[in-house]
Amino acid sequence: MKLFQMNKDELLDFKNKTQSAYDSFKALGLSLDMSRGKPSAEQLDISMGMMKVLDDGNYSDSTGFDCRNYGVLDGISDAKKLFAPMLGVNTDEIIIFGNSSLSAMYWCVQMAYTHGVLGAKPWSKCDKVKFLCPVPGYDRHFKVTEFFGVEMINIPMTATGPDMDMIEKLVAEDDSIKGIWCVPQYSNPDGICYSDETVKRFASLKPKAQDFRIFWDNAYCIHHLTDSPSYILNILDEAKKVGNENIVYMFGSTSKITFPGAGVAFLGASKENIDALKEALGVSIISYDKLNQLRHVKFFGTYENLVEHMKLHTAVLAPKFNAVTDMLEAEIAPLGIGDWVKPEGGYFVSFNSLPGCAKRIVQLCKEAGVVLTGAGATFPYGIDPEDKNIRLSPSFPTTDELTKAMELFVICVKLASAEKLLSE
Amino acid sequence: MKLFQMNKDELLDFKNKTQSAYDSFKALGLSLDMSRGKPSAEQLDISMGMMKVLDDGNYSDSTGFDCRNYGVLDGISDAKKLFAPMLGVNTDEIIIFGNSSLSAMYWCVQMAYTHGVLGAKPWSKCDKVKFLCPVPGYDRHFKVTEFFGVEMINIPMTATGPDMDMIEKLVAEDDSIKGIWCVPQYSNPDGICYSDETVKRFASLKPKAQDFRIFWDNAYCIHHLTDSPSYILNILDEAKKVGNENIVYMFGSTSKITFPGAGVAFLGASKENIDALKEALGVSIISYDKLNQLRHVKFFGTYENLVEHMKLHTAVLAPKFNAVTDMLEAEIAPLGIGDWVKPEGGYFVSFNSLPGCAKRIVQLCKEAGVVLTGAGATFPYGIDPEDKNIRLSPSFPTTDELTKAMELFVICVKLASAEKLLSE
Repeated sequence: MKLFQMNKDELLDFKNKTQSAYDSFKALGLSLDMSRGKPSAEQLDISMGMMKVLDDGNYSDSTGFDCRNYGVLDGISDAKKLFAPMLGVNTDEIIIFGNSSLSAMYWCVQMAYTHGVLGAKPWSKCDKVKFLCPVPGYDRHFKVTEFFGVEMINIPMTATGPDMDMIEKLVAEDDSIKGIWCVPQYSNPDGICYSDETVKRFASLKPKAQDFRIFWDNAYCIHHLTDSPSYILNILDEAKKVGNENIVYMFGSTSKITFPGAGVAFLGASKENIDALKEALGVSIISYDKLNQLRHVKFFGTYENLVEHMKLHTAVLAPKFNAVTDMLEAEIAPLGIGDWVKPEGGYFVSFNSLPGCAKRIVQLCKEAGVVLTGAGATFPYGIDPEDKNIRLSPSFPTTDELTKAMELFVICVKLASAEKLLSE
Repeated sequence: MKLFQMNKDELLDFKNKTQSAYDSFKALGLSLDMSRGKPSAEQLDISMGMMKVLDDGNYSDSTGFDCRNYGVLDGISDAKKLFAPMLGVNTDEIIIFGNSSLSAMYWCVQMAYTHGVLGAKPWSKCDKVKFLCPVPGYDRHFKVTEFFGVEMINIPMTATGPDMDMIEKLVAEDDSIKGIWCVPQYSNPDGICYSDETVKRFASLKPKAQDFRIFWDNAYCIHHLTDSPSYILNILDEAKKVGNENIVYMFGSTSKITFPGAGVAFLGASKENIDALKEALGVSIISYDKLNQLRHVKFFGTYENLVEHMKLHTAVLAPKFNAVTDMLEAEIAPLGIGDWVKPEGGYFVSFNSLPGCAKRIVQLCKEAGVVLTGAGATFPYGIDPEDKNIRLSPSFPTTDELTKAMELFVICVKLASAEKLLSE
């Protein structure tokens, strides 16, 4: 029986039973963290071979350059060759950064803010700067634009990507709209893949602001959870077809391929964008860590090997995601008190409770020892207008811990939903 | 005989002989680079042990944290413990950055520009922002402030550091002066160590601008060239004594201790400065490369070992510096056409030619196959008002190459000087 079909007595009875189950859980004194998309130790072990690939004492790239020394601002050519196919760009359309794609995105926003994009007025000199933010989305994206005083506009997500009608209309009429945050494949947190039509419409956007940029964070482009993954269209290729190739900055990293915090990040864009960014980049750094680039190059050898390597991650992650969605399917679906999409890749399950319940669920979980991503975190300014979205991160805990945490989670969803329905 | 004592015929004869020597050199088809302070391959080999310290498969720091994963924004505590003594700060007065102290300095300027220092008005909102620049100085410092539209004011260097009378006067009366670039020990390029009095006067500065910061780039603090090095006073300690501890940001790195571009950089400052910077830093990055921090920690163990390690660099570098200064002493001193200080540490020999000759000397060297740092590079905007300073970087070439390059250099100095005197 769906919860909303229960009469008050049934609901009270349901609530009391759930409360007892919750109290028993609380007594266990759990201490688990499902708050961030952190790989597990088991996943980190997959890349241990990379730690010894330089043991042969050869520190030169294929051009003979000694990677232990200064130089090569935009990354060694071998690293460009390895990672360019991940973004779907040519080797002169990529910059290899340090260990953090977030840092590269921050820097692009900072550059636009302080110096402007390809000769346009710096955003800091504009009366108003706005960004479009498909929601729910990634909290760290929103923090960057918030930090620079950018006004953020929520764009609803659909099953095929952000609402393109709304986006096309807004960017065409308002030249203070300077950008949009996108996670096009296995979106954070929904796990949605942008459809071909969505990518084409993005590539063909004609914003009023010449310096509008799509921040295309392709963080999960090869992070599949199934054996038959689908790929999204290459936005830069599509943009080139319509003479619009400067519209997009693409980002990727190996944070969830090798080591988070000790991986390699990169940016792909048109030659014109890349040349301008490279020139600016030289002011702040001589070169990034080329030994770490070389480790990745030697460990993987080819992009094909890198893609193959991801299957080892899938083998660890897929059962965990199944544990989450199976539990939701069994315990929540019959009660009609939440919805989610079973993701085919990425790092999250995006759970929508009854409106007005997300904060309460997160609080209940916390009080019983399970930390979730804060309710609201998936929206700009931390404000979820319906207070219903919760991002679940199954990757870090062991499957046993995860099962325990999910047992608690569904109890908290039930309890908060019953409380909510009883209060109405 | 000094060149300026020669009559015209003697000078012409001198010039013709020098020209012949130059032409012979040109015929050799040299191709050498003395333009940057790059360690040599021999120096890089000193730290090779660091590449295998993680081979035991233990990737946890002493708190048990797995350094392969996300987290610990401001650096692992072991790295703080190791590097804090290099800056002379407590472990809560340091942030461990990525591989580049230049990048940390850039970020501090950027933060002041976009968000302001400890609540002060962002520099971008000020009518005018000025920096004091002791000259000659480091070109990459000047490029950062130039990039943000900061007006740079030349401050003459003396044998004890920058002209403090001028600095005290300027900062006291002009609140648009927001900072100063300093390389206090073995200054770049002069190799001057700031005297105790200079450091105390810096620590006691009372600038009109509350958000004035000393950018204390202690890049060469343990990079000695002699067995009996002198140490400068700790500016943060001195500043604390006079209640002025927020006035300084201190920077250091292991770029010239382990690997340039694959080392670790750090920033030291008062707790109040550090707390504010840390909060801002979290917007742009989750954590820097902690595996590389751990490599340094395991390789050195203690700060004392790190200091001991520097003697291996000294052994490689000191003969090269001697080759440079011996040649200048033998070939240039008797002619009275240049001056320099024999540095006791750092990476450069700062050569001053007769006024108006530096560009010509660099050009002559280049045409004969030896690349020097561009004349003017040691001054803001690349403008050396007297066109006389040339930064020599002896570290990268082998001693044989260096000797060859210096043979050419002194010929070019002689030729340019003779040309100059004949034209007057």
